[in-house]
Amino acid sequence: MRMVDVISKKRDGQVLSKEEIQFFVTGYTNEQIPDYQASALAMAIFFQGMTAQETADLTLAMVDSGEKIDLSEIAGIKVDKHSTGGVGDTTTLVLAPLVAALGIPVAKMSGRGLGHTGGTIDKLESIAGFHVEVSKEEFITLVNQNQLSVVAQSGNLTPADKKMYALRDVTGTVNSIPMIASSIMSKKIAAGADAIVLDVKVGAGAFMKTKEEAKQLAETMVTIGSKVGRKTVAVLSDMSQPLGNAIGNALEVKEAIDTLKGQGPKDLTELVLTLGSQMVVLSNKADTVEKARVMLQQAIQSGAAIEKFKTFLDNQGGDSSVVDDPTKLPQAAFKIEIPALQNGFVSEIVAHDLGTVAMMLGAGRATKNDVIDLGVGLVLNKKVGDPVAKGESLITVYSNEEKVDAIIHKLYSCFTISEQQNHPTLIHELLLK
Amino acid sequence: MRMVDVISKKRDGQVLSKEEIQFFVTGYTNEQIPDYQASALAMAIFFQGMTAQETADLTLAMVDSGEKIDLSEIAGIKVDKHSTGGVGDTTTLVLAPLVAALGIPVAKMSGRGLGHTGGTIDKLESIAGFHVEVSKEEFITLVNQNQLSVVAQSGNLTPADKKMYALRDVTGTVNSIPMIASSIMSKKIAAGADAIVLDVKVGAGAFMKTKEEAKQLAETMVTIGSKVGRKTVAVLSDMSQPLGNAIGNALEVKEAIDTLKGQGPKDLTELVLTLGSQMVVLSNKADTVEKARVMLQQAIQSGAAIEKFKTFLDNQGGDSSVVDDPTKLPQAAFKIEIPALQNGFVSEIVAHDLGTVAMMLGAGRATKNDVIDLGVGLVLNKKVGDPVAKGESLITVYSNEEKVDAIIHKLYSCFTISEQQNHPTLIHELLLK
Repeated sequence: MRMVDVISKKRDGQVLSKEEIQFFVTGYTNEQIPDYQASALAMAIFFQGMTAQETADLTLAMVDSGEKIDLSEIAGIKVDKHSTGGVGDTTTLVLAPLVAALGIPVAKMSGRGLGHTGGTIDKLESIAGFHVEVSKEEFITLVNQNQLSVVAQSGNLTPADKKMYALRDVTGTVNSIPMIASSIMSKKIAAGADAIVLDVKVGAGAFMKTKEEAKQLAETMVTIGSKVGRKTVAVLSDMSQPLGNAIGNALEVKEAIDTLKGQGPKDLTELVLTLGSQMVVLSNKADTVEKARVMLQQAIQSGAAIEKFKTFLDNQGGDSSVVDDPTKLPQAAFKIEIPALQNGFVSEIVAHDLGTVAMMLGAGRATKNDVIDLGVGLVLNKKVGDPVAKGESLITVYSNEEKVDAIIHKLYSCFTISEQQNHPTLIHELLLK
Repeated sequence: MRMVDVISKKRDGQVLSKEEIQFFVTGYTNEQIPDYQASALAMAIFFQGMTAQETADLTLAMVDSGEKIDLSEIAGIKVDKHSTGGVGDTTTLVLAPLVAALGIPVAKMSGRGLGHTGGTIDKLESIAGFHVEVSKEEFITLVNQNQLSVVAQSGNLTPADKKMYALRDVTGTVNSIPMIASSIMSKKIAAGADAIVLDVKVGAGAFMKTKEEAKQLAETMVTIGSKVGRKTVAVLSDMSQPLGNAIGNALEVKEAIDTLKGQGPKDLTELVLTLGSQMVVLSNKADTVEKARVMLQQAIQSGAAIEKFKTFLDNQGGDSSVVDDPTKLPQAAFKIEIPALQNGFVSEIVAHDLGTVAMMLGAGRATKNDVIDLGVGLVLNKKVGDPVAKGESLITVYSNEEKVDAIIHKLYSCFTISEQQNHPTLIHELLLK
């Protein structure tokens, strides 16, 4: 088999066989196929697309390109959740202990943040003592004992995907649904998931700007799941404004604690209950999402959820007293209110740009090696649809520098205030297969 | 400027600016832009095409990527001819002395053959003593004295094109009209042509299999010429069977000599007169192609053409006595006739495969470093449209091995004999701008 023939076949709109896809993925991983052929193939896929079967074959070939996490020693159905990334997305921090409180095993490997989006591992590291590097044996023991562990991704999972993603990033071939879908699904499958709940973000703050694109991506991933024997459910959720109110590591941990206590922002709570009830049903702990939702609400009200979170922190060396006293979390030196300049209703909040401002404050990384300032960030005081009076605070800036003049203009440009009130939709659609 | 943005722009069907094209070509030549970005761009161009202006800009950027031959010391308009490649194409060997005999300067740099197509330089080297490595000063002196010199391509002409071609060859991006057109035109312009006559081959033996493709390529090159100030004329000529009768180096030299004496094959003579009369008009030596054709015919009849060829051989150290005694050319040890197996009319001769057989005999190179056997090759005794009786020779094999069993089947598969007679068209179309 010659790679130039595989490229030409896809270029001409033909369907690649499982063997041809494996030949490419294996050869590219082994460095027998050079980058310049891989990028030509990626561009051909960009234009010609891939069938559901090709996309599933690509996913499994990428899973097989590296290590696979074996979670068979953990009893029960392992349901993983994946979000396509957004700004101020605290979902995992709330969901993981919440479903674990219902006895569902949560064995989660998470990443760090880059650019305008944060990472769960960075957020957890704002809790003093918490360690994210855990041996595989300890990881499995923790989940079997407490149903919950979250650790930093380690091992050589899906190296083909890592190489391809880095290449696509510099060759104009990122924006291809089959390649995005197989990238996400291969990572989840290699990490040992039996079933997967996908939170596909839509809107200005997300990678998928329109509902149509997001739906296509969601459908492609759900189809991959059904073809490779992993039950997959996708929820299309809004990212036209940030989720919840907090953007920044310690600030989001505090928000997660509030939400686990039943005092969190409405949109974050709603999304957690939507995704969580799907996870409960996939785990066979409830037969309808309605029943699952009631179980989750009870776990919050009874305190079981926040207790599970405390035990989780204790187990991984974290200071669980932050749950009762959030001032023990890293704090920024300065707190600056940004007042509205007119009366009206907030009609738009550009999530992506707020993520960038938070990064500029130190909450995120511009490049992989940047060190994060865990205490800084932003907290929204107004969200889309809220009435606002001139002088009221739109957003609070938590900074370690007194002067934040450099970001004031950018912050104001993130908010649109109108005379008309509109109400955003949080959950756009649910896709099951 | 970032290369990923240039790729994405083309991917999205937008028109690249002159600066963007220069940025790519310069960066790629300097190895600041890696192969994997160049191949992604090539694939995007394959799908999205290029406007006439982009194609002209790409051509000039490739010309500027390396050395340019300055022919200004040669008096007169330098008209170059280029053929898109075929099998048994002896045109240059005849055309060059023929138009030079009319006082038109022919300063030609030629290449060597690879695969099923031969190269003019290899053919000339079958004449004892002929040297193709000539200094630039000598080259110019030879043309000023005798209106004719043919030398091996030297110097660092269009390095961007060389790099791109090698890359396209292994990434499924060869077959793109704007890239083929700019590759050809950049080489002619860098070699110093004031005006260009293009011989675009069409048919099974050529790169362009259909008249539509060939016409599109021809139009694209003629448009480039008009945009960069080089008068360009294109002739679409048939390559559904080999041109002339001979395939092989010394065999083609003999055929060229015959043709310069007025005793050559009809199709080769006709194509030479068609291309030649365009060259004469472009050189301002005649105001109509009809007059030009008469001048060329007279140069053959008077012996001026063959005399010019002799002087040309003398000037470059070649043994010009081969003109009067072609047996002095390298001869193959064995001459084997391949008889027709049935009566009828020859209806098809697969030029490409005959080229491959000639290569297998040793007349061509499978890889760049192969050594050529100058005396071997094939001579067609029957061409498309000719009647043939069972037992008559279809083709003569000139070989240095007595047994040629390995190629007999392949040779027969190149000929189709039918009951119906058909007559091929030699000149399909003429494109001027």
